[in-house]
Amino acid sequence: MTDRREIDRIVGAALDEDAPWGDLTGETLIPAEATATADLVAREPGVLSGVDVFAAAFRLVDDRIEVRPAAADGDRFEAGAALARVAGPARGILRAERVALNLVQRMSGIATLTARYVAAVDGTRARVVDTRKTTPGLRSLERQAVRDGGGRNHRRSLSDAVMAKDNHLAVLTAGGTDLATALRDARDRLPHTVHLEVEVDRLDQLDAVLAGGADTIMLDNFTLDELRDGVARIGGRAVVEASGGVSLETVAAIAATGVDVISVGALTHSVRSLDLGLDVVIEGGGAGGGTP
Amino acid sequence: MTDRREIDRIVGAALDEDAPWGDLTGETLIPAEATATADLVAREPGVLSGVDVFAAAFRLVDDRIEVRPAAADGDRFEAGAALARVAGPARGILRAERVALNLVQRMSGIATLTARYVAAVDGTRARVVDTRKTTPGLRSLERQAVRDGGGRNHRRSLSDAVMAKDNHLAVLTAGGTDLATALRDARDRLPHTVHLEVEVDRLDQLDAVLAGGADTIMLDNFTLDELRDGVARIGGRAVVEASGGVSLETVAAIAATGVDVISVGALTHSVRSLDLGLDVVIEGGGAGGGTP
Amino acid sequence: MTDRREIDRIVGAALDEDAPWGDLTGETLIPAEATATADLVAREPGVLSGVDVFAAAFRLVDDRIEVRPAAADGDRFEAGAALARVAGPARGILRAERVALNLVQRMSGIATLTARYVAAVDGTRARVVDTRKTTPGLRSLERQAVRDGGGRNHRRSLSDAVMAKDNHLAVLTAGGTDLATALRDARDRLPHTVHLEVEVDRLDQLDAVLAGGADTIMLDNFTLDELRDGVARIGGRAVVEASGGVSLETVAAIAATGVDVISVGALTHSVRSLDLGLDVVIEGGGAGGGTP
Amino acid sequence: MTDRREIDRIVGAALDEDAPWGDLTGETLIPAEATATADLVAREPGVLSGVDVFAAAFRLVDDRIEVRPAAADGDRFEAGAALARVAGPARGILRAERVALNLVQRMSGIATLTARYVAAVDGTRARVVDTRKTTPGLRSLERQAVRDGGGRNHRRSLSDAVMAKDNHLAVLTAGGTDLATALRDARDRLPHTVHLEVEVDRLDQLDAVLAGGADTIMLDNFTLDELRDGVARIGGRAVVEASGGVSLETVAAIAATGVDVISVGALTHSVRSLDLGLDVVIEGGGAGGGTP
Amino acid sequence: MTDRREIDRIVGAALDEDAPWGDLTGETLIPAEATATADLVAREPGVLSGVDVFAAAFRLVDDRIEVRPAAADGDRFEAGAALARVAGPARGILRAERVALNLVQRMSGIATLTARYVAAVDGTRARVVDTRKTTPGLRSLERQAVRDGGGRNHRRSLSDAVMAKDNHLAVLTAGGTDLATALRDARDRLPHTVHLEVEVDRLDQLDAVLAGGADTIMLDNFTLDELRDGVARIGGRAVVEASGGVSLETVAAIAATGVDVISVGALTHSVRSLDLGLDVVIEGGGAGGGTP
Amino acid sequence: MTDRREIDRIVGAALDEDAPWGDLTGETLIPAEATATADLVAREPGVLSGVDVFAAAFRLVDDRIEVRPAAADGDRFEAGAALARVAGPARGILRAERVALNLVQRMSGIATLTARYVAAVDGTRARVVDTRKTTPGLRSLERQAVRDGGGRNHRRSLSDAVMAKDNHLAVLTAGGTDLATALRDARDRLPHTVHLEVEVDRLDQLDAVLAGGADTIMLDNFTLDELRDGVARIGGRAVVEASGGVSLETVAAIAATGVDVISVGALTHSVRSLDLGLDVVIEGGGAGGGTP
Repeated sequence: MTDRREIDRIVGAALDEDAPWGDLTGETLIPAEATATADLVAREPGVLSGVDVFAAAFRLVDDRIEVRPAAADGDRFEAGAALARVAGPARGILRAERVALNLVQRMSGIATLTARYVAAVDGTRARVVDTRKTTPGLRSLERQAVRDGGGRNHRRSLSDAVMAKDNHLAVLTAGGTDLATALRDARDRLPHTVHLEVEVDRLDQLDAVLAGGADTIMLDNFTLDELRDGVARIGGRAVVEASGGVSLETVAAIAATGVDVISVGALTHSVRSLDLGLDVVIEGGGAGGGTP
Repeated sequence: MTDRREIDRIVGAALDEDAPWGDLTGETLIPAEATATADLVAREPGVLSGVDVFAAAFRLVDDRIEVRPAAADGDRFEAGAALARVAGPARGILRAERVALNLVQRMSGIATLTARYVAAVDGTRARVVDTRKTTPGLRSLERQAVRDGGGRNHRRSLSDAVMAKDNHLAVLTAGGTDLATALRDARDRLPHTVHLEVEVDRLDQLDAVLAGGADTIMLDNFTLDELRDGVARIGGRAVVEASGGVSLETVAAIAATGVDVISVGALTHSVRSLDLGLDVVIEGGGAGGGTP
Repeated sequence: MTDRREIDRIVGAALDEDAPWGDLTGETLIPAEATATADLVAREPGVLSGVDVFAAAFRLVDDRIEVRPAAADGDRFEAGAALARVAGPARGILRAERVALNLVQRMSGIATLTARYVAAVDGTRARVVDTRKTTPGLRSLERQAVRDGGGRNHRRSLSDAVMAKDNHLAVLTAGGTDLATALRDARDRLPHTVHLEVEVDRLDQLDAVLAGGADTIMLDNFTLDELRDGVARIGGRAVVEASGGVSLETVAAIAATGVDVISVGALTHSVRSLDLGLDVVIEGGGAGGGTP
Repeated sequence: MTDRREIDRIVGAALDEDAPWGDLTGETLIPAEATATADLVAREPGVLSGVDVFAAAFRLVDDRIEVRPAAADGDRFEAGAALARVAGPARGILRAERVALNLVQRMSGIATLTARYVAAVDGTRARVVDTRKTTPGLRSLERQAVRDGGGRNHRRSLSDAVMAKDNHLAVLTAGGTDLATALRDARDRLPHTVHLEVEVDRLDQLDAVLAGGADTIMLDNFTLDELRDGVARIGGRAVVEASGGVSLETVAAIAATGVDVISVGALTHSVRSLDLGLDVVIEGGGAGGGTP
Repeated sequence: MTDRREIDRIVGAALDEDAPWGDLTGETLIPAEATATADLVAREPGVLSGVDVFAAAFRLVDDRIEVRPAAADGDRFEAGAALARVAGPARGILRAERVALNLVQRMSGIATLTARYVAAVDGTRARVVDTRKTTPGLRSLERQAVRDGGGRNHRRSLSDAVMAKDNHLAVLTAGGTDLATALRDARDRLPHTVHLEVEVDRLDQLDAVLAGGADTIMLDNFTLDELRDGVARIGGRAVVEASGGVSLETVAAIAATGVDVISVGALTHSVRSLDLGLDVVIEGGGAGGGTP
Repeated sequence: MTDRREIDRIVGAALDEDAPWGDLTGETLIPAEATATADLVAREPGVLSGVDVFAAAFRLVDDRIEVRPAAADGDRFEAGAALARVAGPARGILRAERVALNLVQRMSGIATLTARYVAAVDGTRARVVDTRKTTPGLRSLERQAVRDGGGRNHRRSLSDAVMAKDNHLAVLTAGGTDLATALRDARDRLPHTVHLEVEVDRLDQLDAVLAGGADTIMLDNFTLDELRDGVARIGGRAVVEASGGVSLETVAAIAATGVDVISVGALTHSVRSLDLGLDVVIEGGGAGGGTP
């Protein structure tokens, strides 16, 4: 669950972006007193994520609008399922609709894709995790979506864990520093609560990295054989993370090598919004319309 | 081009999100005085968008970092092309890298996809336009990316044009209001500079909508035959927009019906980030590393 | 009606400006438990605008204060009329009073002036509209006030419609560009929902502007004869807007020339606050005081 | 002079309000590389105020634009005077123009009106001061404009001085508190740096207010005879402020009664923007256009 | 009492700082439906300050949490006293706890120390006041804490009173200006509500400062004899403030010299947080834990 | 080093707090063109922290002010040492002075105290770390000060590491959950980069906590014998942190028990500002004044 203060900040900013000085259409065509009821309906199967965010959009526009979820984050659903009901002043519902959908569709798209990755590694010890390749401004929501899909999160930001990547090692080496020493020095200066992860490109880097005390070692763009070799050599002395070239086609084989963590940039860097719509039912009867 | 004040706001917020209290890795592993040079390199062909945004990330982190573009927004490039060179303090370059890439990859992904749609309708009168299905917080940048890809923009927000959709018409009808009258009343109260667009689901709605004085009529989810029929009936009295069911497979046929505008939610609602990386070259020689 | 999110932002900022660290007078002289009831009273006749804004000031200071409007935005009133009743903790009422009055007086001043212009053009086809000569920070409220006075709005900002003015045309011409071509090119690149307005200073510019496809043509500082001539030449092919030299003395004659729109900078650039006051009635009886 | 941090905040917000996503006209009609030079020209005589604010609008849009003032805040000028020259990229100049003018016209309008009040009381001991009836959001700028016109400021806000007005006294009295005691108690609890001003409606309140230790006594809506009587009775034991019914017609007579301070709500509550325009001179020759 | 808008801003920012993306511990270890009750308990005697601020932290995290104060700001208490009861969802209570305690401990520490200074000067005419040596960002709260301890406030900021200190006088003198004239000129340009305080280092400066019309004269780092001499020479013509070298050991003697005001930087520049803890009592029984 | 973006935010807010509408004293008493030079001088020995923050205050007020540090963060200095020189417009220097000093004094006070703790544990394996008992709003700066004093940081916030304290365990136990299971479950759901710390009050809790996989075990309020016992029982399977009852008198003995980490709330919860002043030297000669 994302913090309510953060949800309100993100959703509020999105509402301002989408209607900086009001909704011309609603204010000129819809009577102020008109009410409506609408259902959030799935047009394809998937995994729900962001029902609180969806609800916040309506609440922030008009706190008289009620949103009653019919499913919870993490729930799987079929096409046609009604996931939440929205009721209240029609103007407010129509003004918040696009923002509410943009967010819940994106989050559910991520959760649904994550769930497919998670299913693919079922039965192995591997966990599927996200990366920092998230949409600027939406990291909290996208990380929640990954969790709702059954995945796990990687570090949140540059501020809460160390990850020494190839570029860092290249700068270090250029300066003539010994890697193991540099890592031990870093650990000595960092909070004892900070996790130290190091990315390696070749197996011959493993000894220095283990000597430096890495908590996690990321094997970047390794072949399956190399991965198996790496897992064996590390031998439980560090968490093993596989990265690079991960897709739905390859993830099961990667997991079978015995790695602990598989990080998948595609979970968030290339999101397909799930097809969810808001179908309005007019108060007092009448057939509802559809949101394309 | 997006306003510099807005770019700085978006990029600044993204930097804060990605490193709320600094970059632990860079600050512990990279000497403060180390410098680096890096190239933004294309790993696949595409259309560039967001080079200003890319540069802003580095400038906001450390204004001693210089970014020299080798290509301009809207330029096509091949895999392997170097698109910009970044030079300056290594810590700042590594801290800004992910944010800079996240944004330019997303924008270039949108521009590249848009260019494919635009190429598909070449030779027709149709323009390809975006929708409000953008990423919350990034609408300005995504609209620029659509333009960089050769597309055009639709309205920016609920505040700058009227679009009466099925849900609005449903509420109106439920209240017993005559559509043509309602539209004429709305137009009378709106600024004379406001464009009035109305979505119709069936051809028999056209007379009322034309009588109401719509500037643009959106034909939603029409078959190709219905689109041709609609274009003929409207006869130049309004701009004709086709919407719904648009894909790279269908867009050429839709354009051939004679519509003026084709709106494509997929341009922004389901973005695949283009594969661009930052390859670091160490100052004073040494081989560069790669950004996975 | 202005969006509640925007009202709260404007009024909240005004409250902070007016009492950055509390109300010294109220906190030292008024017991925390004292309550009061007060009426918003008109000291001169006018048209009401901003009753929601007035109420928001009290609500944001102390949500136990109740404000019951006795009139609605757009209503005309006579001197002496009670327009709203405010009741609750006395400290909060006195702290919010000045901000509440500053805003409702300004808005009602604009609405009242607008209503006089609108009355002056009664019986003609002309609508009276505002300009961008609004008070920085208050544009949304001042546009609402114009509507409450029976006027219409012009474009909101530089971002939601094109208006090519003399300075633009001068720069264009200096560059050797043909005006009609430049306008058609602009239209081709702009969203189809963007309205294209062009200002002309002389009748001989009309042909190029019409050829360029202007939606509205502004005749700037024309004599009455020239206006009549312009209306005839344009012949319904564009909206005709008159601008410049408009006052309560001249507006009826300008409207009689047949123009569609008359833009009046004076509606907002030179506002006389309407004389409204808050008369306090002490709880438990006692005569009320007056707000000068 | 207003603090630069505050100027940038106010002007930045005004620019965002006036072009939330850029200037459609400039970006489509003006080449990015076009430059222009323009003069701020007086269309009527007056007193200048806000030249820093005017310059900030251009600087914040594009820091390549240079603004060279030809006059300083507080300077008097005649119709036709050139007050500042603006030179740089044409797009930026046209985007900032309206905001820059809106602010400098308003501030100069206030300074010019203030100067007339100040001239009217010349030769007396009275100073002309403003009130809290300022435009929400612009208080700092409007107070500066009053000073630029030769006036003085009253307290800035509810937080920096006590002013006990009729409504406060009414609530106090209703609670049965003795006025002199209440004022002495307040003074005992307040910072020793806080000025204590009390408004009286009748001369028989003076003894209690003086006994309470008021630093300033405001005589509200007194006749000229009553003012003279009040000045005599107070006898230099407090600053004497006259308020209510002050206009350019009455201010000289009020000043002649011997009061120290005359507060004039009209200085800011009903501002007429001074008629200043920006006349563009095209680079490389060509006659400039005018800003209506 | 501090303004609620300001409390919410400060506490909200503190909550964001302390949990930028949620409370990992609570969200993984505490069931969402668990509730708890906890008491704010004094571990040492003191004076309470900040109970509203304490309550705000819980309310802003989850408005279902109820906080019932058992004491009011300014109340003295003994070790072991229960000062407030907090009840509601356990996650929210544990997330807000540290921020709530950090603030109420600091404020009560200031109030308690202030009370000791105030007691030390009992029976004299001197008031104990704070300075601008407050914690950046917390000035409003720390000033309230001083008042809750029985102290008084000095000016709030550089904007609400003049205090000419040694550095100002040095710059003035270097420029060759006569001090009395400079002060009278300043007073003439300042609002009549602005208090003019001048700091002197030597008794021979007193004549010029009195001639300049200072409202308060600060005797900086004077010996007790010099203070007595200064009080006598000033003879009631200005408020006399002693500053410098004030401690709990010296304050009584300083007060006995007859000064009106003693400003004590130590009230806020070196705060010892009072030892208050939150003892949790599990719903449905069970022994409570303690907050170290 | 703290991120420059964050420094500017904190210092900018502090400047706004200290002079919301300018510096009345400087603006009325100091000529705009006056310049000054001043030294940051130590009035007592200590360890420097915050020289960048000190410099930022002057830069943000007026970027023409130059600050040249004569010492670096972490340097020890004696009383009388000149730590930095400030030169530029006198108004700006006097306006920024208090904010600059408030911050550098506080940070250097923390660094100096930390250095004493660090010296006391010299020769042991123990590191001295801070807690979340920081000043709301200043956590980043106070953490840097601890590092400048030779200490290390604990977790930054509730968001970047798990710490299960007595209150969490009490709620868990009340719900009937087994501790080891709960910890393992938590670890399974958390990012693999999250450090898991658990606080214990009694030695008999150690087995469950070790079985739950804690990375760090905090021994809270243990006697020295208990600490030694705990270190032995844990036997290197987790980091051992001592907490509670730590003072300069006890810290050496605690360190001698063999614990890895000693957390000291007093480093930040009860700060004594170090006595640093700004001594102004007037341009063109003249003796400098002192900042009390």
